[in-house]
Amino acid sequence: MDIRQESLKKHYEWKGKIEVTSRTKVRTSEDLSLAYTPGVAQPCVEIHEHPEKVYELTRRGNLVAVITDGTAVLGLGDIGPEAAMPVMEGKCLLFKEFAGVDAFPICVDSKDTDEIVKTVALISKSFGGINLEDIAAPRCFEIERRLKEICDVPVFHDDQHGTAVVVASALINAFAVTGRKAGDAKIIINGAGAAGISIAKLLISMNMGNIILCDINGAVYRGDERLNDAQKAMAEITNRDNEQGALADVLKGADVFIGVSRPHLVTREMVASMNDKAIVFAMANPTPEIMPDEAKAGGAYVVGTGRSDFPNQINNVLAFPGIFKGALACRARDIDESMKIAAAYAIAGVLSKEELGPDCVIPNPLDPRVAQQVASAVEQAARKAGLARA
Amino acid sequence: MDIRQESLKKHYEWKGKIEVTSRTKVRTSEDLSLAYTPGVAQPCVEIHEHPEKVYELTRRGNLVAVITDGTAVLGLGDIGPEAAMPVMEGKCLLFKEFAGVDAFPICVDSKDTDEIVKTVALISKSFGGINLEDIAAPRCFEIERRLKEICDVPVFHDDQHGTAVVVASALINAFAVTGRKAGDAKIIINGAGAAGISIAKLLISMNMGNIILCDINGAVYRGDERLNDAQKAMAEITNRDNEQGALADVLKGADVFIGVSRPHLVTREMVASMNDKAIVFAMANPTPEIMPDEAKAGGAYVVGTGRSDFPNQINNVLAFPGIFKGALACRARDIDESMKIAAAYAIAGVLSKEELGPDCVIPNPLDPRVAQQVASAVEQAARKAGLARA
Repeated sequence: MDIRQESLKKHYEWKGKIEVTSRTKVRTSEDLSLAYTPGVAQPCVEIHEHPEKVYELTRRGNLVAVITDGTAVLGLGDIGPEAAMPVMEGKCLLFKEFAGVDAFPICVDSKDTDEIVKTVALISKSFGGINLEDIAAPRCFEIERRLKEICDVPVFHDDQHGTAVVVASALINAFAVTGRKAGDAKIIINGAGAAGISIAKLLISMNMGNIILCDINGAVYRGDERLNDAQKAMAEITNRDNEQGALADVLKGADVFIGVSRPHLVTREMVASMNDKAIVFAMANPTPEIMPDEAKAGGAYVVGTGRSDFPNQINNVLAFPGIFKGALACRARDIDESMKIAAAYAIAGVLSKEELGPDCVIPNPLDPRVAQQVASAVEQAARKAGLARA
Repeated sequence: MDIRQESLKKHYEWKGKIEVTSRTKVRTSEDLSLAYTPGVAQPCVEIHEHPEKVYELTRRGNLVAVITDGTAVLGLGDIGPEAAMPVMEGKCLLFKEFAGVDAFPICVDSKDTDEIVKTVALISKSFGGINLEDIAAPRCFEIERRLKEICDVPVFHDDQHGTAVVVASALINAFAVTGRKAGDAKIIINGAGAAGISIAKLLISMNMGNIILCDINGAVYRGDERLNDAQKAMAEITNRDNEQGALADVLKGADVFIGVSRPHLVTREMVASMNDKAIVFAMANPTPEIMPDEAKAGGAYVVGTGRSDFPNQINNVLAFPGIFKGALACRARDIDESMKIAAAYAIAGVLSKEELGPDCVIPNPLDPRVAQQVASAVEQAARKAGLARA
């Protein structure tokens, strides 16, 4: 089966993967008076007097906006707001299916940071949370930062933080499986864009080891004039020994390779140059930086990819539904670092000791245990951080 | 039963009157591959190459945005975007219940015309139509006019045009019941805001008679310096004999009174001064300009209000679900005057000769025949006007 052609066929059948449906019927004159005028005036007055009641009297308490500008969609790049919609609807579908969270897709027809920020901010009071999606770097950083400042609901760029959380959870278990201790490992992240930088930041918060970011020019180091601002800031907090050189150079002796870059950048020989029991997460889509059999042949002990046809699928769907479910449950005003770390440990903790192994460091994306355990952990973390409002 | 307190109770139970639900399940790895990555890339590519396919491959073909700034909500006025949400959700519920149209509420947190126009325009490609709601005059005129220019989907301010369509349909039947001919009637519209002006414009398009708009200062006439721009423009096309004076003065000898103003502005004596078999539509909410029994005592033959506890309830729900259903069915790029007129005649035509009478000039808001007949008529009118795109 050609999965893409089959998907196209299904999309023509579905005519939308999500739907807006009624939670009550309007069959009688009384129904109409209660759900609409004149009765509806009372919940309006109630919210006007007590704004926080909007979370109980409307859908806002369980509702996330999935927002994109259509500039970095899958591997397709800048395909615009209309063509991005099937992905956004898919994301909304996953929110509902995995966590029971209502999510609604909004594709913003602009590539201007100010316009996007303004638009999202002005509609944000209709939602309980904002999930940013497939917005190109470096614009995505500023958009998220500014929206987090302006909005009174949590704002979360899933391509950055969802990916980081799931990678971190896989790494927690991979460390256990390979007998590593957090703090000591040399971790190479190839790809110094939104995802790579966000992974690096989270792993630093979790004190996982000596992180070195690489881009097409090799290791990101202090003093490199070719770096953009985001990368310069990262050079300050990564690469303990300020190593320079190509990916192949810094990979020597490394414990972990994390790829969020492009297909076929890593060879069997490069993996062989890594430390014993190497951990390789090759997440380029749809073709990994190195295929799992090649990585294993090079000596890798734990191998993960983004694909469903190999073990250890590192998939954001393990994180975002539960993270938002937990944030919404306590009406968190933000999703902070502590909540992301809690999510990573919760995902990792889903697997029992018996389940854990080199081919099982991360739960299956369809594992029904995940979202609820992530939600509980995230809610607890939000309360501890003082971010809960209910 | 106190309908408002009961409504509040129900709203706490409902936790939102609408919900975003799944149109397909995600239970297997294959489901995930088809609805999301990697399969979803194909419908994205298809839309990128053929933008109109977005209407078939996503929910856009059946989806309306219900948008407000929260400045003119019910009789409550400017209560803001959060407190407006129960009304917007109610509207979305009615779209679904009466016409099977998906509708999603967006409350924009701004009172600035430019900001509102920009925000709605930038999200409009996520929807098949835009229903503007409860936006204060005169801002609502400019917002609607500019959005109609910018957006490639129909934009419809329901408080103006929905009301106008339903009033027109009631008037068509009231003329039949009282043996009047369109063109001859003297029609007084009290309330020269958004609704009143829109009613006047539609009745002029339909050549229903000599329209005189009144506001708090009396008849709107050519040369009156107190008028705002919208009213000045109306003075040019209404009030054939340029009558001046208070409402009570111009109402003398009138055939029709249409009130979209405030409670208790019309007395039994004023109705008695009207022509024989007078038609009185007193639509101030929740209390009409004159109560039906008083109007009848004054000699009115046909009396309508906005209320469900009297005959002839003039309720927008008769119009907007079917109008958008028809516009979406043929992917109309606009909702123009001819489509509104078609809707008015379709609503009026739902009632058989046997059903028609002074206490039945308009179908019951719950009449299941209405939305489909309106949709068919509107779709046909759109095709005739060259506005259909599918």
